[in-house]
Amino acid sequence: MTDNKPFANRISVEQVEEGALLAPKFDGNGLLPVVTTDAETGEVLMMGVMNEEALLRTIRSGEAHYWSRSRKCLWHKGATSGLVQKIVEIRIDDDQDAVWLRVAVEGGASCHVGYRSCFYRAVPVTTEEGPIELSFKEAEKAFDPIEVYGDAPNPTQL
Amino acid sequence: MTDNKPFANRISVEQVEEGALLAPKFDGNGLLPVVTTDAETGEVLMMGVMNEEALLRTIRSGEAHYWSRSRKCLWHKGATSGLVQKIVEIRIDDDQDAVWLRVAVEGGASCHVGYRSCFYRAVPVTTEEGPIELSFKEAEKAFDPIEVYGDAPNPTQL
Repeated sequence: MTDNKPFANRISVEQVEEGALLAPKFDGNGLLPVVTTDAETGEVLMMGVMNEEALLRTIRSGEAHYWSRSRKCLWHKGATSGLVQKIVEIRIDDDQDAVWLRVAVEGGASCHVGYRSCFYRAVPVTTEEGPIELSFKEAEKAFDPIEVYGDAPNPTQL
Repeated sequence: MTDNKPFANRISVEQVEEGALLAPKFDGNGLLPVVTTDAETGEVLMMGVMNEEALLRTIRSGEAHYWSRSRKCLWHKGATSGLVQKIVEIRIDDDQDAVWLRVAVEGGASCHVGYRSCFYRAVPVTTEEGPIELSFKEAEKAFDPIEVYGDAPNPTQL
């Protein structure tokens, strides 16, 4: 059988976990979760999802592509903001249903709020009852989101 | 109004993104995605999910708890394997629907296949057609999964 597809079929647990062919498992919505880190600092910049096309475009182009759940479209990160994520390395996990991107970010920032990382606040470990107070881990924003995004709708949902 | 709940209500985009109270958003299944990195090396160890109880137990105990989708139960990571993840820092993202755990792992490994990280294989950036070949990034396993897990069912689904 000549099979020229980029993704292999999933035949056995051993093949998926210990094999050397990319055989990704997309969930019921056709998506897999992605975590993106700064290749230099190890900082987690963002979490997102990819569909088949986003994964293939990332592999082909060397720039991070995601599926935007808020806009329901393929999302070439940085197309609006200029903050393109250049791929340093792509990793896949044991059961091939999650992706880790190590990237270099032009402009050094990845968060639509203007911070370097989307994870700019820490949650304490505490046994105290009552509301849990966050602490900010980035002293200032890396860019002005209004300058960069203008009046594009904010993706945050309540 | 005296409100002693640990999680604040989500009132506005500004409060969620720029506020200092933990107001997490769980998805339709009551879950939020979690990425866990080694606090020392920055390596991504695993991705998982938390429900409300798993997040609260992590905050209260200082040890990583997840929701196991394969076993459908609260999962105190390391309860079976001894590979407990001690919390160094918990981060929450801009819209508070994703968590980043920075941990120290007793035993240094987190993957049920025996590797340090679940992300032990790299996907190339390539324009070549045909099956995509992975490369192994960890030279050897950190532990013997059969010794550690015995005949516990493998969580990988085809």
